[in-house]
Amino acid sequence: MKYLHTMVRVTDIEASLRFYRDALGLELLSRRDSEAGRFTLVFLAAPGDRSAQVELTYNWPAPDGTAETYTGGRNFGHLAYAVDDIYAACQRLADHGVTIARPPRDGRMAFVRSPDGISIELLQAGDALPAAEPWASMPNVGSW
Amino acid sequence: MKYLHTMVRVTDIEASLRFYRDALGLELLSRRDSEAGRFTLVFLAAPGDRSAQVELTYNWPAPDGTAETYTGGRNFGHLAYAVDDIYAACQRLADHGVTIARPPRDGRMAFVRSPDGISIELLQAGDALPAAEPWASMPNVGSW
Repeated sequence: MKYLHTMVRVTDIEASLRFYRDALGLELLSRRDSEAGRFTLVFLAAPGDRSAQVELTYNWPAPDGTAETYTGGRNFGHLAYAVDDIYAACQRLADHGVTIARPPRDGRMAFVRSPDGISIELLQAGDALPAAEPWASMPNVGSW
Repeated sequence: MKYLHTMVRVTDIEASLRFYRDALGLELLSRRDSEAGRFTLVFLAAPGDRSAQVELTYNWPAPDGTAETYTGGRNFGHLAYAVDDIYAACQRLADHGVTIARPPRDGRMAFVRSPDGISIELLQAGDALPAAEPWASMPNVGSW
């Protein structure tokens, strides 16, 4: 038995790629656009850790333009990733316009949300980093 | 960067252990009951694949007995696992009273839901198995 992936639905594939690939730093492994099925599937993973993936499912709008919308539920919590430098990871997210919902004030843990509200936890690999500004005095924003 | 886990919230830790450990076959890695924080955290993973985990978060009821309840949201899709024998995996789930929402009619894919509505996809590792009863003629039940 082997874990393969966590699938999340997205409403904007380009916005989702900016978040998961460009801002969060996951590697794009594959993308399949199905004209017949009117869906796009994207698989991403942490660089060097291809065995545990995230699948993005984008269902194309109906021919009349009607698009699916997605809300979140509390039964799902978050996806968690270890990062080598939590400040650098949060800076890259912020540089891409992502709100740091729970800044890494402790040099150890941060939370952000995807464009569709999926909560992502970042944890510093190994020991916490020394407290550093601007993170140490940055307030929480919203929920995560 | 490394994927660590997907966290889900659960309303009944024992029912969740029956599902994730006994019926689905994940291995219990750790359990922490915090009297002070009034929560229980459980980590599980596929046997032999400890690097990709599932975290169950159980928030204990308030002193007055008020308990949290969780609904699902469409932005989260499912967790996916490869299994060596999808029929044996589904039989074990059924033996534990789990509804096979999407039976493996094709010998390749099945879906079930956790007690809190988290959708789990099972995929046959390698080639699909030959079609076999009772699975081949089993109808879908609900959504997944």
